[in-house]
Amino acid sequence: MSLKNPDSSPDISGDERSVTISIDKSPPLETQTVCLPPVRTTFQKLIHRLREIFFPDDPFYRFKNQTPLRKWVLGFQYLLPICQWLPSYSFSLFRSDLIAGLTITSLAIPQGISYAKLANLPPILGLYSSFVPPLVYSVLGSSRHLAVGPISIASLVMGTMLSEMVSPTDEPALYLKLAFTSTFFAGLLQASLGLFRLGFIIDFLSKATLTGFMAGAAIMVSLQQLRGLFGIPHLTTKMQIIPVLVSFLTLRKEWSWQTIVMGFSFLVLLLTARKISMRNPKLFWVAAAAPLTSVILSTLLVFLLRSQLPGILKIGKLPKGLNPPSMNKLYFHGPHLGLSIKTGIVTGILTLCEGIAVGRTFASLQNYQVDGNKEMTAIGLMNIAGSCSSCIVTTGSFSRSAVNYNAGAKTAFSNIVMATTVLVTLLFLMPLFYYTPNFILAAIILTAVLGLIDYNDAIHLWKIDKLDFLACSCSFFGVLFISVPMGLAIAVGVSIFKILLHVTRPNIVILGNITGTQVYQSLTRYEKASRVPSFLILGIESPIYFANSTYIKERILRWVREEKERIETNKGSMLKCIILDMTAVTAIDTSGIDAILELNKTLKLSSLQLVLVNPVGNVMEKMWSSKALDLFRMNGLYLTVGEAVADVSSLWKHQQ
Amino acid sequence: MSLKNPDSSPDISGDERSVTISIDKSPPLETQTVCLPPVRTTFQKLIHRLREIFFPDDPFYRFKNQTPLRKWVLGFQYLLPICQWLPSYSFSLFRSDLIAGLTITSLAIPQGISYAKLANLPPILGLYSSFVPPLVYSVLGSSRHLAVGPISIASLVMGTMLSEMVSPTDEPALYLKLAFTSTFFAGLLQASLGLFRLGFIIDFLSKATLTGFMAGAAIMVSLQQLRGLFGIPHLTTKMQIIPVLVSFLTLRKEWSWQTIVMGFSFLVLLLTARKISMRNPKLFWVAAAAPLTSVILSTLLVFLLRSQLPGILKIGKLPKGLNPPSMNKLYFHGPHLGLSIKTGIVTGILTLCEGIAVGRTFASLQNYQVDGNKEMTAIGLMNIAGSCSSCIVTTGSFSRSAVNYNAGAKTAFSNIVMATTVLVTLLFLMPLFYYTPNFILAAIILTAVLGLIDYNDAIHLWKIDKLDFLACSCSFFGVLFISVPMGLAIAVGVSIFKILLHVTRPNIVILGNITGTQVYQSLTRYEKASRVPSFLILGIESPIYFANSTYIKERILRWVREEKERIETNKGSMLKCIILDMTAVTAIDTSGIDAILELNKTLKLSSLQLVLVNPVGNVMEKMWSSKALDLFRMNGLYLTVGEAVADVSSLWKHQQ
Repeated sequence: MSLKNPDSSPDISGDERSVTISIDKSPPLETQTVCLPPVRTTFQKLIHRLREIFFPDDPFYRFKNQTPLRKWVLGFQYLLPICQWLPSYSFSLFRSDLIAGLTITSLAIPQGISYAKLANLPPILGLYSSFVPPLVYSVLGSSRHLAVGPISIASLVMGTMLSEMVSPTDEPALYLKLAFTSTFFAGLLQASLGLFRLGFIIDFLSKATLTGFMAGAAIMVSLQQLRGLFGIPHLTTKMQIIPVLVSFLTLRKEWSWQTIVMGFSFLVLLLTARKISMRNPKLFWVAAAAPLTSVILSTLLVFLLRSQLPGILKIGKLPKGLNPPSMNKLYFHGPHLGLSIKTGIVTGILTLCEGIAVGRTFASLQNYQVDGNKEMTAIGLMNIAGSCSSCIVTTGSFSRSAVNYNAGAKTAFSNIVMATTVLVTLLFLMPLFYYTPNFILAAIILTAVLGLIDYNDAIHLWKIDKLDFLACSCSFFGVLFISVPMGLAIAVGVSIFKILLHVTRPNIVILGNITGTQVYQSLTRYEKASRVPSFLILGIESPIYFANSTYIKERILRWVREEKERIETNKGSMLKCIILDMTAVTAIDTSGIDAILELNKTLKLSSLQLVLVNPVGNVMEKMWSSKALDLFRMNGLYLTVGEAVADVSSLWKHQQ
Repeated sequence: MSLKNPDSSPDISGDERSVTISIDKSPPLETQTVCLPPVRTTFQKLIHRLREIFFPDDPFYRFKNQTPLRKWVLGFQYLLPICQWLPSYSFSLFRSDLIAGLTITSLAIPQGISYAKLANLPPILGLYSSFVPPLVYSVLGSSRHLAVGPISIASLVMGTMLSEMVSPTDEPALYLKLAFTSTFFAGLLQASLGLFRLGFIIDFLSKATLTGFMAGAAIMVSLQQLRGLFGIPHLTTKMQIIPVLVSFLTLRKEWSWQTIVMGFSFLVLLLTARKISMRNPKLFWVAAAAPLTSVILSTLLVFLLRSQLPGILKIGKLPKGLNPPSMNKLYFHGPHLGLSIKTGIVTGILTLCEGIAVGRTFASLQNYQVDGNKEMTAIGLMNIAGSCSSCIVTTGSFSRSAVNYNAGAKTAFSNIVMATTVLVTLLFLMPLFYYTPNFILAAIILTAVLGLIDYNDAIHLWKIDKLDFLACSCSFFGVLFISVPMGLAIAVGVSIFKILLHVTRPNIVILGNITGTQVYQSLTRYEKASRVPSFLILGIESPIYFANSTYIKERILRWVREEKERIETNKGSMLKCIILDMTAVTAIDTSGIDAILELNKTLKLSSLQLVLVNPVGNVMEKMWSSKALDLFRMNGLYLTVGEAVADVSSLWKHQQ
């Protein structure tokens, strides 16, 4: 077996040995040289590695072979995607976007008010947040269907984390400052992840983790809605399941039956509307219009019965006018800075996950691409702008984007339509919300978050991947019983543990020859596969790293011991050669190389030959540069298992 | 392509389709069925998984097919390895062990005294620690060459961590208590890791990490020896490089030239002895005898010149007698408990690493096996026993074990010999150490720790694996400039990051056919490999997980785009089919399956067919149970790339 030296010319070397042997009934076989990858300097490798880490999508490929002017235009369009679609915007596109924009506004106004309340903030902030961020996104964002605004999870998390340290009722000014500062840090984090192309970090929140997290958070939100739905003003603001239930049951005296009756009636109405739209996607407008309709109906009801029902909790007076600037409310020093940063990071990552996932979902439905890192920058800048104009953290909401898509939105212009409608509302319609009851907001939130509990997905996870299910359960129970950030941290820990476990205890299979072919496959899986006498062929299914090198070495020695025992029992022909199929060993490090060398030494002491088959690029290179390959130069390295078996057994025949 | 249903009988199903086609000059090819692994229940899988995690070495295989009496004997021997070798112990073995035992004693006494001082503890503790632990180990341990006693790294770490919170000079009683308690917790951790078979946790401290750590710690220890070697009593006890150097230079007035001259003379002597033994392993006794000889010589010198050199720092009076019990000094409550636990964990893991590594090294030299988990239990119990008898944390020291091995030790009896000799010393010879100067201890420590700086290994790491080198540097600089536990934590973090990076950004290669064979290999690596027209064959070299599913999907789409561009430029035949070689995809999770389904959908929209080749056991099973395989049932699933290319192209011919 000759080995190509990467220092020599890359041509096939002349001393290559080609042995042609016939074994069994298989066709003549020519032994192939195992090549090293092309020589590259450390710097070239580093550049290649960094490019794969940070620019896997090759974002500049559009600029190749273009004139300088065209490059400028493309660069401008790349930075401001609005320049891509606005020049060719037409009336028919506008008509679609107008309808979609009006539809999502009818959803955005009540949801905005509700989600601001969910974060223990003045309701008007929800409307502010549906005005500035959508405008910024429509300029910077590359998704055509994302409907921007506050989302329940982020508002909940912000409310929970901030009110653990600062009471929103006792220190409302400080609480407001912290909310804007958290929004700023969320935006800063998002924009930096995008700019530094670190977007892949959010991939570590797996879908399984998010499923559990969403369900847990939805239950926490639902429990908090008991306050509005049962009219209990003094329900605890704690965010663990036990204290809330205890508080709910001990405050039975505060329950208001009028609120309960009206609240549950509207809840049933909203849930029915949602059910109808889910059954028949063409009737999407039923669910889309239901919240605003309910708000109008309930407000009218409370207004008409205002003398009979004085105790009903209402939104009350909302200030008229546009977003006031809030730069002066950002808080960059003092004892609560750490809290704002932490809240910013958690809400930032959550909104990023939802925004990117929603963007990708609708992009794949319409077969266009959304650049994750660019989208993160857009969302981040939108939140930084929001934090300076009295907005809370926003992103593309799944429910509103779905309505937007179904209502026929064609471009980000529907966000501009929504912003304009919210502007009109802010300027002229605020007094109309005076009598809007709290129970209708609770019902709207409940309807929205119940959709986040996806038990079918959990069942699916259990069926397919038990460790995914574990990650899902950890985040679910962690959120319910410990806290939102801890629940997330535990779930990410479990997910990473899953990866490490696979590496620490990799699968090793015994391979056998499928009779009449050159294919070698797992003996346990392929009944047709049979052992090759005198050979033990093992397939290692993992990189060989410090974390598993000892395991792999000792496990292989155990396989050898067991094989010898088996041969002794069956009186088979003596074991002479161990073949390691390295096709699936995708990486190796210094500990791994040491393990292979030690294995080789130990096997030699028992007069067993070790043969390596098909080490892939990197592995081959590292074994070569550590001089470990020298030991396998002669009859120790083959391209396929078939060649190894044929060549080694022919050698034995010659030796006899 | 037929798919075997695991619910049906495991026999080869009758509806299997075998297509025989000829392409190029290759032999006729029979299409093989891709099989699912045998059906197993969740419980069976769990049991299998747990067995691989906790019992990969199958420790009970010796008990198979044995009589009940024999099983009892074997069990007894398993628990107390001394029962294995003591019954057949002979005089010739005893002679070897006696010589080895006396040789290591001559090393153990000065090193013991020095390492106790390194931990800021009374020197006598070093001798106590060379008496009880070796006796315990000789009964429980399964290595034949391990020489047990305190080691420099562990003493250094214990000294550093404890003296950061409690001053050994101001509160010596509390400091002593904390040292014994840390030893107890170190032993408890080690014994538990062994008993619960979690020994693989120490594998996460890779050799690269340890190389950097050892070098950093050695430099820290050496700096502390400036105190003894220059005779500076007030040198700072801080454990960072900058404060020590500053203190060393500002205290120039305290430097004692007599100490310096004598200290450096003995240092040169010791280093020369070490060099001689390293050059010629047969002269191992030169290095082994040098420390005791130096101690005797320097003690004599100081005794004779005691009137001329009153300022020389000496050990002074040491108490005679055996280890006093120290159970009453263990400290299980109060403010410093956390500190003792932390110190116990760090020293416990470090001593475990050294002990296990040393045991394995000498076992592999003599071709016997050391059971890692059992060895951990032995080391742990030895430290628990030590903590109750005034010992500090001990383990198998590399330098002493090497001397033991070279001196011809055959069994753990050499430890008994050493313990007996130390016993005689403790009972009768303690007054002899009164005039032993501190500088000789400093010189002995320096000689020992300088051997821990292995810059050749660091160069080797740089050459082979840059990320291993990074882990090494991180632990080196972390230990020097931050702190010992932080340095270790950062290095473990880097090592885990390396694993995650490989998963997050896996390698994907384009495969081509090596002409005249059925072998498909990387185009960049094999010049002989050539593209198959109309096909794009990609090999994915990593599990497909949540952490990389998006990357893999988008990277494959980029390959497709680039391949289309290439075809357009070269006017090649139209791309029709993407083949994913899944041989190296050793695991998949729900996100991975979703990614493959989405990829399939996206490719279908561009009229491209997606074909999977050779999904290994687990992947096949998960894709089957998630119904994802249904999409690939017809001409979408093959066992080898060759079969896929042949079958798909023959189908195209039929369709024309």
